[in-house]
Amino acid sequence: MPANRQILLDNRPSGPASESNFKLVMVETPVLGEGQVLVRNHYLSLDPYMRGRMNDAKSYALPQALGQVMVGATAGEVVESRSAYYQVGDTVVGRGGWQEYCVMDSNAQHGLRKVDTSAIGLSQYLGAVGMPGITAWLGLVKICEIRTGETVVVSAASGAVGSAVAALARARGCRVVGIAGGPDKCRYAMQELGFDACIDYKPHQDAASLSRALAQACSQGIDSYFENVGGMVQNAVLPLMNMHGRIAVCGLVAGYDGTPIPMANPQLILTSRLKLQGFTVSEYTELWPGALKELSTLAISGKLRPRESIAQGIATAPRAFLGLLKGHNFGKQLVKLV
Amino acid sequence: MPANRQILLDNRPSGPASESNFKLVMVETPVLGEGQVLVRNHYLSLDPYMRGRMNDAKSYALPQALGQVMVGATAGEVVESRSAYYQVGDTVVGRGGWQEYCVMDSNAQHGLRKVDTSAIGLSQYLGAVGMPGITAWLGLVKICEIRTGETVVVSAASGAVGSAVAALARARGCRVVGIAGGPDKCRYAMQELGFDACIDYKPHQDAASLSRALAQACSQGIDSYFENVGGMVQNAVLPLMNMHGRIAVCGLVAGYDGTPIPMANPQLILTSRLKLQGFTVSEYTELWPGALKELSTLAISGKLRPRESIAQGIATAPRAFLGLLKGHNFGKQLVKLV
Repeated sequence: MPANRQILLDNRPSGPASESNFKLVMVETPVLGEGQVLVRNHYLSLDPYMRGRMNDAKSYALPQALGQVMVGATAGEVVESRSAYYQVGDTVVGRGGWQEYCVMDSNAQHGLRKVDTSAIGLSQYLGAVGMPGITAWLGLVKICEIRTGETVVVSAASGAVGSAVAALARARGCRVVGIAGGPDKCRYAMQELGFDACIDYKPHQDAASLSRALAQACSQGIDSYFENVGGMVQNAVLPLMNMHGRIAVCGLVAGYDGTPIPMANPQLILTSRLKLQGFTVSEYTELWPGALKELSTLAISGKLRPRESIAQGIATAPRAFLGLLKGHNFGKQLVKLV
Repeated sequence: MPANRQILLDNRPSGPASESNFKLVMVETPVLGEGQVLVRNHYLSLDPYMRGRMNDAKSYALPQALGQVMVGATAGEVVESRSAYYQVGDTVVGRGGWQEYCVMDSNAQHGLRKVDTSAIGLSQYLGAVGMPGITAWLGLVKICEIRTGETVVVSAASGAVGSAVAALARARGCRVVGIAGGPDKCRYAMQELGFDACIDYKPHQDAASLSRALAQACSQGIDSYFENVGGMVQNAVLPLMNMHGRIAVCGLVAGYDGTPIPMANPQLILTSRLKLQGFTVSEYTELWPGALKELSTLAISGKLRPRESIAQGIATAPRAFLGLLKGHNFGKQLVKLV
């Protein structure tokens, strides 16, 4: 029975989340029951949606229970098995949470599944070929219904979802314009992720200024906007949306902490006949297989191979997560646990 | 050649519209060309969208040109014809504008069409069985895709669109809750239009207070919201929307004058996975025949026979229009010209 270090949600944030909301504990891994497997988590995925679950409020996910292991997607290796389907040594992904080991039922309860690491690295199944990749696919294909020749804008462009948005939109013949924080991320987005342009929002004091900069990169207006951040960026994008534009509302990081940030001019929804639709990756599971197939192909061909930002050791997870919320990560944020 | 009194847009409002933006002129009706008809307008329809056209800004309709007759839908009678298709005495609807007479080409350029007034009054073709009715139909059927048993909320409930929303939603087995200004309109909405409940927004100082009142009338939450007003009412409705709720954004009267009113908490689009979609009646003309058929049936059966607010004489049109923007009308606002 290996010792297992876990991060629990100890108390809920009032205002910005902080490290004091979390608590590191050490427990023994339990004896396996029939049909269970013990997985050693190699990678923990950190994602913005987790911030919403820390609140005890209606969000797109149920609140995370206090005193329980933080939920989260993990990739790892089966180290003990009482399931006929899983063998020791199998590489798997699932929702193992913020901990070094997890016990999982071999039925689909926690979304446990084997993955093939011969051509795609294990950690990629938490990013490009995992939940962030599928999120990008659903937003572009299902919500925005993007078409060849359109201009697609995505915020948080250099992140896990943003990099998949770029690859998927380019594969469909779209012009892809990113919005990211800082010249390094913007350069990376253009040079490595294939964005046609990427606007640094940081030098802009207000939405009007950012909007002018964005307009120069979107000479044909914006047909689809993949919304990851909200706030000032959203208010900069809205006036540039073309008639019948679509906005996939996937994340609103800017409003996760404390007071919501208003939409300055909802009138534009009417005048430009926009569609805005909130969605999460859990909505359309019937579309996942097709999405994963395309994402795998793009990953293997090198057209989708985003950078990863890797923190080392379970104890670093809270700090890495808070950094993610502030945009300190560069690419997909992971915690390496081995 | 009868004399024709017209209302022109003389100058654009800065802030609230006023009577001084309009100008009454008298002209002679021109000699008809081949294929043209002269229509004596009996009724002029006044509608909130006209306010948007008074601005020289991107709106859902092109700006109204200065010095030209205000555009608008009219119902009248052919008094002179050089078209084989139209006879003197035919009752017609079209976009004749704010004037007593109009010359129209008998082709469909101005949407001229004959209407049968044997079972439906001429003025109803400007309301229940006209553009407002079709607007209600498109919002409910095409945008909101309402289903039996759902709760539908509509703002400006006692108006032309609101009354059609009530009849169409009831015909589909929905609970219909209105929002209107003042106890008279609310009573009328429930007693004559068939609303299950109608909330008076006027006693409420803020969105939170209105939201609490609305929640009492919507014990199962709100599945679809037909948005006619925006502002405080919108901010009161949004927190009550059920998961996967739909909002048909048809009008935002509250923001037509001056500064736009922000959406306080766009976060709800994500947390409740809402769809908001702006639309206008001109979007889906292929659906009009089916809509008009249902609306006619409802009108003839008495299930859709809303009240009309009738001003007398073309000179009263500006004042009646400004009253409409302030909610002074009671039912469909018309100007009677004969």
